Amino acid sequence: MRIVRTTAELRDHVRAVRADGGTVGLVPTMGALHAGHVSLVEAAAGRTTSTVVSLFVNPRQFGDAADLTNYPRTEAEDAARAGAAGADVLFAPGVDEVYPDGFVSEVRVSGPLTERLEGAHRGPEHFHGVTTVVAKLLNMVGPDVAFFGAKDAQQVLVVRRMVRDLDLPVEIVALPTVREPDGLALSSRNVRLSADDRARAVAIPRAIDAALALLAAGERDAAALLGAAAGPLADAGLTPEYVAIVDAATLAPRGTVDAPSLLALAVPVGPVRLIDNALLSPVPSDAPVPALSGAGSTGHAVPPTPEKG
Amino acid sequence: MRIVRTTAELRDHVRAVRADGGTVGLVPTMGALHAGHVSLVEAAAGRTTSTVVSLFVNPRQFGDAADLTNYPRTEAEDAARAGAAGADVLFAPGVDEVYPDGFVSEVRVSGPLTERLEGAHRGPEHFHGVTTVVAKLLNMVGPDVAFFGAKDAQQVLVVRRMVRDLDLPVEIVALPTVREPDGLALSSRNVRLSADDRARAVAIPRAIDAALALLAAGERDAAALLGAAAGPLADAGLTPEYVAIVDAATLAPRGTVDAPSLLALAVPVGPVRLIDNALLSPVPSDAPVPALSGAGSTGHAVPPTPEKG
Repeated sequence: MRIVRTTAELRDHVRAVRADGGTVGLVPTMGALHAGHVSLVEAAAGRTTSTVVSLFVNPRQFGDAADLTNYPRTEAEDAARAGAAGADVLFAPGVDEVYPDGFVSEVRVSGPLTERLEGAHRGPEHFHGVTTVVAKLLNMVGPDVAFFGAKDAQQVLVVRRMVRDLDLPVEIVALPTVREPDGLALSSRNVRLSADDRARAVAIPRAIDAALALLAAGERDAAALLGAAAGPLADAGLTPEYVAIVDAATLAPRGTVDAPSLLALAVPVGPVRLIDNALLSPVPSDAPVPALSGAGSTGHAVPPTPEKG
Repeated sequence: MRIVRTTAELRDHVRAVRADGGTVGLVPTMGALHAGHVSLVEAAAGRTTSTVVSLFVNPRQFGDAADLTNYPRTEAEDAARAGAAGADVLFAPGVDEVYPDGFVSEVRVSGPLTERLEGAHRGPEHFHGVTTVVAKLLNMVGPDVAFFGAKDAQQVLVVRRMVRDLDLPVEIVALPTVREPDGLALSSRNVRLSADDRARAVAIPRAIDAALALLAAGERDAAALLGAAAGPLADAGLTPEYVAIVDAATLAPRGTVDAPSLLALAVPVGPVRLIDNALLSPVPSDAPVPALSGAGSTGHAVPPTPEKG
């Protein structure tokens, strides 16, 4: 496991891999790697010759200074975990390497994809910060494939739109959200939950499960499904920033689940803001109704179907 | 000479060139190729294995609809001329190939580089349109080197800033402005000048020469140099949109030429808006003072020194 700090050194590595006929996968992360990241690294290592995990806590996508300050930083553990999962390079540039003196450029995706949900609540600069740094990382590394987690479903949609619009020569793969045995989506921010808050946070996957169960029972009315999701949150004393059912491709609000839709929510729990989502399919599937608090329900929140880039 | 319409076909070509150990040069154009473009194509063909000339009249960088409508379109002649100069591919995508349905992304360089001079007069969207399409072309083609003309000096600065900020893996080369025997900078728009307007347009290089002659005589005061440039324009009855002396790297206004500076001007001549520029070096050079109406003065307006990307 090699730790690389500069774009020049990284490109030397990528050039050598390509010269041998190899392929390169990128897993962009902000560090504090958990089993969700590990699943991305394993997928990358299974598909490409060399897997680069980038570790960069991007100041430009944090609207909240305290969230940036408190974001966990655990590089040595991250390197070990990424290496064990099959990565051969940890690319961990400093802020000065990523944003040199006089930096004034930006990559923007505009419209509903970046204005709704997280964009509405974290401010429009959030996704501009995401697309700028992801475009930079894709240009620095030049991977054949890049891997993202479906927990950040909106981010996946925004990144795919950017890649298509700007003709970035990379395939974007999204992989299912990985969850704790009680259903809580893995997040680097979970470590900041107190024991009591951690117990209450399970209301988030329960809210999703309640909506999925009602959907599986035949309900297609968004308001009814949202009503089902509201129950577990209220029971836990949690007030969501938003719980919404939107079109899974455009994020436009949907009154009826008669096309692939996304149930997305953001919920403050103690000092932490957690997000989660699930795909709502209008077509009944053969899959069993997810247990309301099923153990090890890794895949129960189905990720958006990957689009062709 | 092969004409290519799609990114997919273009990438097949580039992949084949690279598989043979070759390199790729890109000359982005809006067509209506003249000797200035030819000099870029020749330089590209001399440095790279395969030279791609792109031909795309980008609607997003025209603030003026009439200018877009009247922009000359001469694809067959362009293909012949580019081929004769050493290009092997003319990449001429349609607007739908470049801007697919639902296109909402943009690459922006903000601040003085895009707000001054052309940015102030053509509107801020002009350079956003330029950087977006240049980023797309660089991503579509993936060249090792891309070639631009120094006549669009501000564009060169903006593109270099974008390439550095977004880590685009390409070298940007700027080549000197090519001129008519009487000094008029070649431009695809020159064909729209009437005989009378064409005669008056020579006042533009004469204005530059007047400033350069005064600079060579030891004058460093920007107001004095601008005063010298104003004479030939007034004599020809031309009213410039702007004539400015700015820092050659930042485009900040300069009162004194005590650092590399750019004399830049935009002048409406009949139905056409022409631009031109010259580098003003604070250090006297050994070069002879340019003749005020020298014949064949190809290089008399010195391009900005290429920066390291």
